[in-house]
Amino acid sequence: MLKGKMVIGQSGGPTAVINQSLVGAVLAARKEEAITGILGARHGIAGIMKEDFVDLTTQSVEQLETVAQTPAAALGSVRLKPGRAECERVFEAFKKNDVRYFFYIGGNDSAETAHIISEMAKEANYDFCTVHIPKTIDNDLRVTDHCPGFASAARFVALAFMGDDRDSNALPGVKINVVMGRHAGFLTAAAALARQAEGDGPHLIYLPERVFDVEQFKVDVRRVVGEFGRCVVAVSEGVSDADGNPIASSGERDSHGNVQLSGTGALGDCLSAHVKDAFKGEGVRVRADTFGYLQRSFPTIVSPIDAKEAREVGTFGVKHAVSGAGNGSVAIRRVSSVPYASEYFMTELANVAKETTHVADEYINAEGNDVTSAWLDYIRPLVGDLPEIGRL
Amino acid sequence: MLKGKMVIGQSGGPTAVINQSLVGAVLAARKEEAITGILGARHGIAGIMKEDFVDLTTQSVEQLETVAQTPAAALGSVRLKPGRAECERVFEAFKKNDVRYFFYIGGNDSAETAHIISEMAKEANYDFCTVHIPKTIDNDLRVTDHCPGFASAARFVALAFMGDDRDSNALPGVKINVVMGRHAGFLTAAAALARQAEGDGPHLIYLPERVFDVEQFKVDVRRVVGEFGRCVVAVSEGVSDADGNPIASSGERDSHGNVQLSGTGALGDCLSAHVKDAFKGEGVRVRADTFGYLQRSFPTIVSPIDAKEAREVGTFGVKHAVSGAGNGSVAIRRVSSVPYASEYFMTELANVAKETTHVADEYINAEGNDVTSAWLDYIRPLVGDLPEIGRL
Repeated sequence: MLKGKMVIGQSGGPTAVINQSLVGAVLAARKEEAITGILGARHGIAGIMKEDFVDLTTQSVEQLETVAQTPAAALGSVRLKPGRAECERVFEAFKKNDVRYFFYIGGNDSAETAHIISEMAKEANYDFCTVHIPKTIDNDLRVTDHCPGFASAARFVALAFMGDDRDSNALPGVKINVVMGRHAGFLTAAAALARQAEGDGPHLIYLPERVFDVEQFKVDVRRVVGEFGRCVVAVSEGVSDADGNPIASSGERDSHGNVQLSGTGALGDCLSAHVKDAFKGEGVRVRADTFGYLQRSFPTIVSPIDAKEAREVGTFGVKHAVSGAGNGSVAIRRVSSVPYASEYFMTELANVAKETTHVADEYINAEGNDVTSAWLDYIRPLVGDLPEIGRL
Repeated sequence: MLKGKMVIGQSGGPTAVINQSLVGAVLAARKEEAITGILGARHGIAGIMKEDFVDLTTQSVEQLETVAQTPAAALGSVRLKPGRAECERVFEAFKKNDVRYFFYIGGNDSAETAHIISEMAKEANYDFCTVHIPKTIDNDLRVTDHCPGFASAARFVALAFMGDDRDSNALPGVKINVVMGRHAGFLTAAAALARQAEGDGPHLIYLPERVFDVEQFKVDVRRVVGEFGRCVVAVSEGVSDADGNPIASSGERDSHGNVQLSGTGALGDCLSAHVKDAFKGEGVRVRADTFGYLQRSFPTIVSPIDAKEAREVGTFGVKHAVSGAGNGSVAIRRVSSVPYASEYFMTELANVAKETTHVADEYINAEGNDVTSAWLDYIRPLVGDLPEIGRL
């Protein structure tokens, strides 16, 4: 039995349930003889390099359960995508502290980090086990049916559109809502759950999986306004033109070289200007909102299934690690949609690292401006019951 | 006893509980012999002028209760601020349909409309009773302690800041959140409820009641970043410079001649650019979100006290009207803050029409960049229990 300390860290964008995974792993680890100490890394690998650890062996279960209910990484997160040099510093810190288990809660970049470190341990003949615990509101990890964190963000988006569509129904006009998702449109597609009756919005849904044509967009909006006297639009922040250029951006780039899309109203304002121009002189009210960071860390807006699964991927990861079955990434297999049932399994780190996935073609309509019923079948069981819309 | 039909309408920006007032009034009216028919006006006075009514005597209580739980005006709303000509058309429609009671759910413009029509009825010796039922997320009506709709929007803002502050704590930087409120900062001030411990954001709160000085803002942000390594800012969409000019706007004006502030990310992006400039080369991450329309119509984010009071101002208004005590606007008197208790009373329509109120000086700190503890004493009982933030 591999015996030693474990380090657990959180990485990337926060979710509403990322602390469920942390608490699930910590509570499971406390029961394992193989794990001689539980170190929480402050701000992921940035903290590990500085040996900035929190001892997670002593907190009361009550305190941890409160943490589990709190959105956004309680240990702190990090956006650093490490190179080999950083990973070596992490590995040195592990060796120095007799760390034998590493659990990294995050997206594909975190899986990649875990993978690099696991390869280093292998080369150094250092007995070591690394497990990646999946987390991302983007839902873009490969292998797994869906990602913990996604369904709660999707629930926020569905509720937001449900309320905003009633708002638009009360005060008609064109309303454009920009949803997170640079390359994958899963979260934007969740807006479709807001519809309960004929004529409910969102009336148009644009994902980054399809080229965004501003002229076609204006044609689409005009058609919907003609039919319903109003139009609610869901659009991914990452929509791009035929050349792959973002439709609008602030021009700033982050440390990954990505153009800043979140934390700015640029795309919403740009699309709003296009629609205002198209309806010039027709007295059509046009507004745009950008949902922004609220989507990923709103307290109380949590999918019960998401909270449960986020907890259980943490627990499962620890049990797998101490079983001696080796490195890997926890994944979710859907056993049944109605009634919903899932189970967990492990996949190779390399299967999850680097590449991501996208909304499947079968989930997008032919015109590229809506989702299909197959998409609703996929997502509906994940987000939990939604309130019924009352009408007169 | 004044006997005849009643018309009820909803006006202005939607709230999460505006339909509670509608349902409260309708269910109360169904019990009153004096009321011979209940007509719901589609889109407020715009519908009345066209005699576009929904019969509200036949819906099941179950259907109405579902409507009560649904955000945004179920009858449709209107932004029209009527002149005398429009009010005359409304009055004609009332006479034609033997309408003797008019209930208008809305803000100060709605009270003004009700007041004009009540004066016309008096001049024409037409037996008639008009009651204004208060509603506004802005909380800016005079006389009443607070306005139905405000506390639920305040709850949304408090929760949003609570989650976003955890997000900022996990991935530090400067985060600017723009909150609704053109002239009154009540909703922005509600952000302070997100704080549970030393160092929690929002760290700075700017209301339209004080001049916004961009240079001082940058100094404030730098001080907070120096102290906490990050800074979360709450700022009202309506903040203006010493000359009364909005700090940023899209330039568009609405039908009231107001510059468009909501439904655009312009202010957030403008302040974000100022802060980025101030921290140039220092690697500080700066983001801005504009909460937008989600604040006023998010399903499930409802203050229980707000829902109860919104229902009861509707009921109270009807009971007052049929009692023969004359026109008026329903107001809330706070009897006690701890434990919270309130009661209802009537005030003259003229006391609520036209002028609005603002955040009192005692609720704003001397520097004009935060609220006081007196403000928290005022607002805390209204929004309902907030979740506890878990920490490691």
